[in-house]
Amino acid sequence: MAAAAAAASPATGVSYPSTTRKALLPTLRVSRKFKVAAAVSADPAPAFQSVTAFAPATVANLGPGFDFLGCAVADASLSLGDTVTATLDPTLPPGTVAIADVTSPSRPHLAARLSRDPLRNCAGIAALAALRALGVRSHAVSLALAKGLPLGSGLGSSAASAAAAAKAVDALFGSHLHGDDLVLAGLESEKAVSGFHADNIAPAILGGFVLVRSYDPFHLIPLPCPPALRLHFVLVTPDFEAPTSKMRAALPKHVAIKHHVRNSSQAAALVAAVLQGDATVIGSAMSSDGIVEPTRAPLIPGMAAVKAAALGAGALGCTISGAGPTAVAVIEGEEKGEEIARSMIDAFWSAGNLKATATIAQLDRAGARVISTSTLS
Amino acid sequence: MAAAAAAASPATGVSYPSTTRKALLPTLRVSRKFKVAAAVSADPAPAFQSVTAFAPATVANLGPGFDFLGCAVADASLSLGDTVTATLDPTLPPGTVAIADVTSPSRPHLAARLSRDPLRNCAGIAALAALRALGVRSHAVSLALAKGLPLGSGLGSSAASAAAAAKAVDALFGSHLHGDDLVLAGLESEKAVSGFHADNIAPAILGGFVLVRSYDPFHLIPLPCPPALRLHFVLVTPDFEAPTSKMRAALPKHVAIKHHVRNSSQAAALVAAVLQGDATVIGSAMSSDGIVEPTRAPLIPGMAAVKAAALGAGALGCTISGAGPTAVAVIEGEEKGEEIARSMIDAFWSAGNLKATATIAQLDRAGARVISTSTLS
Repeated sequence: MAAAAAAASPATGVSYPSTTRKALLPTLRVSRKFKVAAAVSADPAPAFQSVTAFAPATVANLGPGFDFLGCAVADASLSLGDTVTATLDPTLPPGTVAIADVTSPSRPHLAARLSRDPLRNCAGIAALAALRALGVRSHAVSLALAKGLPLGSGLGSSAASAAAAAKAVDALFGSHLHGDDLVLAGLESEKAVSGFHADNIAPAILGGFVLVRSYDPFHLIPLPCPPALRLHFVLVTPDFEAPTSKMRAALPKHVAIKHHVRNSSQAAALVAAVLQGDATVIGSAMSSDGIVEPTRAPLIPGMAAVKAAALGAGALGCTISGAGPTAVAVIEGEEKGEEIARSMIDAFWSAGNLKATATIAQLDRAGARVISTSTLS
Repeated sequence: MAAAAAAASPATGVSYPSTTRKALLPTLRVSRKFKVAAAVSADPAPAFQSVTAFAPATVANLGPGFDFLGCAVADASLSLGDTVTATLDPTLPPGTVAIADVTSPSRPHLAARLSRDPLRNCAGIAALAALRALGVRSHAVSLALAKGLPLGSGLGSSAASAAAAAKAVDALFGSHLHGDDLVLAGLESEKAVSGFHADNIAPAILGGFVLVRSYDPFHLIPLPCPPALRLHFVLVTPDFEAPTSKMRAALPKHVAIKHHVRNSSQAAALVAAVLQGDATVIGSAMSSDGIVEPTRAPLIPGMAAVKAAALGAGALGCTISGAGPTAVAVIEGEEKGEEIARSMIDAFWSAGNLKATATIAQLDRAGARVISTSTLS
C-alpha cells in the first residue's frame, strides 16, 4: 500500500503500516523498550525547520570482536562519514519520509546507485524508524543525503547514512530519543540492507568503541577510553568490491573450542585495553583473530601482505575493517601514519595488483551529531 | 635421580635437574622472560628464617570466561584458602625442597591424601619452581602446608597451595620475583596436577579478577574493579566429587559460530563490567554461558535447580565455579547472602539429593600474601 506507492513513485512520502512507537521491537526481535530522554508528547512538535547531521565511518569486528565490537573513526575534515539534512515538508502526507536528494561529491557515480525509495535507502528506513519511535504523526520529512563514504568498503557506509538520518530526524523534533533508541532506528536499516548486526550502527551513533553485548535484551556497552589515548587508524581501501554477503558466506560454521577460547580471551583483552588506554594491547589484540580473518583475508587480494607491511612499518596492529576490503591499521599518535599508509598501498599493489587509497583517521568519540540547524519560519 | 630418590624417600629434598632460572620457560611453553623486581644475585641470601603465606580460593571461568578468566575470593577468617610455611632447612641438600608437614584442620582425612613427595605436591612443585626462578643454590627449604580448601571442589585448591608456596619461598629470599613470575612458578604446579591453565593460579597470586590473555607470549591482564564495588560470592559446595578430567571430557570439541560470538560478547561484557564496577552486568554475564555450563551442569546433580534457586532468591548471577561441583552466585553487598545460600543448599538437596555447605566470601583483592615471618637467628 504505502510501500507499493512509494516504489512506483519515489517522490511520495512513505510510512510504515504501523505508527505506534513500540512497533519497532517485534520487527527487530529485540526486547529493549524505548527509553525517552525527556517526556515526549504523543506527536511532538518540530523544534527546527531543518537539521543537518553527520555520522562517522565505523570499523566493525576489530579482529576478535567479530559481530560485537566496533568503533567510530573520523578525519579532521569530516570527509569520512555521511551527512543527512532532514527538512519539514508540508507537501508530503503526515508521518512520512521522502528522499529529496542524494549526492556524493567525491564519487559522482555513487549517487546514481542509491535508491530514492525511502524503504530501500538506509537514510530513509532509519528516518522512518526514528519518526515512528518519536510518535510523529502530524509532520513529514524530506531528506537530503550527502555520501562521504564509498559503498561496500567495510567502513560502515550504510550505518553512517542511517545514523545521520536518525540523528537529524530526532533533532528536528526536539531530541527526545535516547542513544540506544537511535541505534535501534538505525538497526532497522542495517537489518534491511546489510544484516542484523549493530557493530557499525552502534558506534556510528554513540561514537568511540561500543560493545554490542546482546540483542535480547538489547544491551550496548559504550567503552570510553582515556582522553590521553591518541588512537589513530590508517584505513587503506583497495579498488575492489567485496560484497558483505560473500564475505559472510566465507565464515566457518563451527570453531574448535580452543580457537573459541583463544579468540574470546583476545576480544576480552581488547575491551580491557580500550578501557585502560593501552594502545599496544589494542593493536596486538586487533591483529590476533584466528577465526574470521583467516577465512576472509584470502578473498581480498594482497591482504596478508598488507597486514605484514603495516606491522613491518610500525603499526601496533592490523586487520580487515568490517567485512573488508578496507585494511585498518592502528597507531598511537599520527606521526607514523603516512609511512604506514604508503607501505600498505604499496603492498596492495605489489601483492594484490590493486590500486588503493588511504585515509588517516582518529577515534571519533562523538558519533552522530548535529552540524547545522535552521530555525522554524 | 633426584626425583627418583625423593619418590623413594619423601623426607629427602628434591631439585629439578636444571637449576638455571630460564629453564622454566621451555617446560611451560610460554615465552615470558622472568622480570625480577629488584636486582637479584645469582644465589640470593635468605631474608627470614621462615615465612608463612596465605593464598585465597579462586573462581575460574566465571561463565563465559572459560579457561581465561578467574577471580580470588576470601572470607574474613581466611578459612577459604591454603597456608604454607617455608622454612630454611640446613639438613637438606642445597637447592632442594621437602614437605615437612601437611595438615587440614577442618578436614582431617584430607591431609593423608596429599603426597609428601615435593614433585607430586602442588606446594612442592611451585616452591621448587620459585627457588629455581630466584636462582637459589646455597639453601634448601622445608614446607608445612595447611589446607583450608577441599580438593576437587572447583575452588582452586591446587592453585591455592601452589600460590602460597611460591609466595612464601619468594619472600623467604627477599621477594625478588615479579607477580607474573610467581604465576609461572604456580603454573608449573597446575600443569602437573590439574592442567595447563592459569585462570586459578593467576588470581590466587595476584588477587582480584585476572584475564589470562595468552600463554605465548605469556600475558596476564589484572582487571581492577572500583573500590566502591562490594562484590560478594555465595559458594555452595555439594558433597560430590567432580573430577576435573571428567568435566574436561564433557566439553564440546567445536562450537557453532553464533554461540562463539554470543559467548565472546558476554565475556567481553563481563570484563567491561568488572572494570566499570557494574555488579548487575557482572552477574548476568556470569549467568550467560551457552557453551560450557550446558555440558557440565547436567553432570552435577541439582545444578540447574541450584542456579534457578539462587537467581530466584535475588542473586545477580550464578554459574559453576571452575569445573565444579561448587556453585557460585554473585551479589552486591552481603545482606542477601544467607538467604541465597539457604535456597541453594535446599535445591542441592531437593533436586540433587546432595548435602551441601555454603560460604559467603568477598572478592579478595590482595591475592597471595605473607601473613607472618620469623627473623634469621
